Amino acid sequence: MDSESLLIKALKGEKVSRPPVWMMRQAGRYLPDFIALREKYDFFTRVQTPELACEITLQPVDQLGVDAAILFSDILVVPQAMGLEVQMLENKGPFLPFTVSTRQEIEFLRIDGAVEQLEYVSKAISLVKQELNGRVPLIGFAGAPFTILCYMVEGKSSKTFDKAKQFCFSRPELAHELLSKITEVTITYLEEQVKAGVDAVQLFDSWSGLLGPEEFKQFALPYLVRISDRLSKKVPVILFPKGSWYALRELSQTSASAIGIDWCIKPQLARELTQNVKTLQGNMDPCKLLLPIPQIQKEVKDMIDAFGVQQYIVNLGHGILPNIPVENAKAFVDAVKNYTSSSL
Amino acid sequence: MDSESLLIKALKGEKVSRPPVWMMRQAGRYLPDFIALREKYDFFTRVQTPELACEITLQPVDQLGVDAAILFSDILVVPQAMGLEVQMLENKGPFLPFTVSTRQEIEFLRIDGAVEQLEYVSKAISLVKQELNGRVPLIGFAGAPFTILCYMVEGKSSKTFDKAKQFCFSRPELAHELLSKITEVTITYLEEQVKAGVDAVQLFDSWSGLLGPEEFKQFALPYLVRISDRLSKKVPVILFPKGSWYALRELSQTSASAIGIDWCIKPQLARELTQNVKTLQGNMDPCKLLLPIPQIQKEVKDMIDAFGVQQYIVNLGHGILPNIPVENAKAFVDAVKNYTSSSL
Repeated sequence: MDSESLLIKALKGEKVSRPPVWMMRQAGRYLPDFIALREKYDFFTRVQTPELACEITLQPVDQLGVDAAILFSDILVVPQAMGLEVQMLENKGPFLPFTVSTRQEIEFLRIDGAVEQLEYVSKAISLVKQELNGRVPLIGFAGAPFTILCYMVEGKSSKTFDKAKQFCFSRPELAHELLSKITEVTITYLEEQVKAGVDAVQLFDSWSGLLGPEEFKQFALPYLVRISDRLSKKVPVILFPKGSWYALRELSQTSASAIGIDWCIKPQLARELTQNVKTLQGNMDPCKLLLPIPQIQKEVKDMIDAFGVQQYIVNLGHGILPNIPVENAKAFVDAVKNYTSSSL
Repeated sequence: MDSESLLIKALKGEKVSRPPVWMMRQAGRYLPDFIALREKYDFFTRVQTPELACEITLQPVDQLGVDAAILFSDILVVPQAMGLEVQMLENKGPFLPFTVSTRQEIEFLRIDGAVEQLEYVSKAISLVKQELNGRVPLIGFAGAPFTILCYMVEGKSSKTFDKAKQFCFSRPELAHELLSKITEVTITYLEEQVKAGVDAVQLFDSWSGLLGPEEFKQFALPYLVRISDRLSKKVPVILFPKGSWYALRELSQTSASAIGIDWCIKPQLARELTQNVKTLQGNMDPCKLLLPIPQIQKEVKDMIDAFGVQQYIVNLGHGILPNIPVENAKAFVDAVKNYTSSSL
């Protein structure tokens, strides 16, 4: 299980011969086989049918040779399990017809029995583990509580999530109640994923970068910490608070094994702010996968040179885009595998 | 002309008794009188009719007592003047039915005669200056070339402007041709604004924060510099590359007088990175204007304490939101006027 050891070793800070590589949204819309399944089954059918989720999860492992699988699912299964309707409008993103803004609505959200709604996730994980048969490790994931609150309050995606932020700023007590409930469910949900077999978990705080440094400390960080403290006793935890570069010092003091970063911070500065105590994951701009392959290879080499081989997981700074040619995605992965340090 | 001296003094780094204050989008949708005009006249009628633009520009000066007026207009008048159709869909934002992606399309864009299309802007400026009669200075503005390219290539607003970024990354020569053409028109346009009477100009690079540090240096910074070098000989220049905190060192070496920042960077760090050689402008999260008034007052006081009174212009970190009560916006302005340093 050479590849597994690569990811898990990198997460544990153990010495590796080259960094592992995977891509956020690697099981996604740039793969023709994924598109073929999308044409046959709607979004939640794919998510909730273990055989389909398993098939989709394995596609990038088989076709690109990434060093880790990440379960095909969605962060919004948690609000769904807590009792909110979530629709996925093709090309428009998620839509929650009933949003949360009052104490009563928060009280209505289910904790007991919520994770039981997500048994299909555990079944998919078991299937994937069986099919992987030790080839590469499997990453489980959930949305971070602040990001889930964003969707619950705003009801849809947004450039700025003003409604959600205004809710937090003007009703902080209610916001903390909601965040606590989401946190509780998320911990149980991730523990179930671990029981089913995932080897590591990642928390996606996709919208935390919309908060300033003080507000991040108030509404995002404590919940990342709470989840990480519980889960890191079982498997390595990766935190990805996108855009929250300003919190790298605080994040490096958490129990998480790794921190994901986007392309707006230079590797050297990220290393400085995390004082080399954490594994870093990232951070190529997904748009760069559209470059000619020799340039992708150069970008990858420069990136590994800058981060260093140790305590590093090669990834994009955000999800892979739908219009990336498969051969470019493969060139990205291969460039990592073929990496030779110029200093060796 | 006490208020004018306040803004211009702050821009020149001269000593002031308190910092000046204005708000991005202060002539906007949170003001009932603005909404009344919006119900009578469509977007481009308001922009292109000097009397209407003048009336809207003056509303926040009369009603909130801000220390500067900023012309009511839109950054997309430049692509319009260069020959692209721009539609403004109410509640949906801008839409450009014809986008730019080939050399031929770039060649088609007009330079000669472009700024002549924008005579209504000069007329509006003359009217505003006359009506202001020296009460406060008037800020002119334009979109920065990278941001204008984003709209020209993408055709509409976007969370990530992937299409525009992919164009830059994969066709850098074409991108630079386009950026140069936009820059040329923008310089002439801003020079006309100065001739008509504006006292300072601001360049809005609303999407530059989607670029990483290296790409910012390649596709955004050189054009900000080119415009600033020409305009700063005539009036003080404010650069607002939103989200590009990572470039503060480079920005502090430009000919601009001031740099705008958003709420994702702490004042102390922004001061450190700009080494106190530039005036800073910002940076309250616009969502915070929904807080109760005593909390707004506290936020303003803490913010001025953190930035310091000198070389500072109080503003939001982005445009004011449509659902902000007018009294809250006024409380923000008044809190600056009533500021007394705790160290005095």
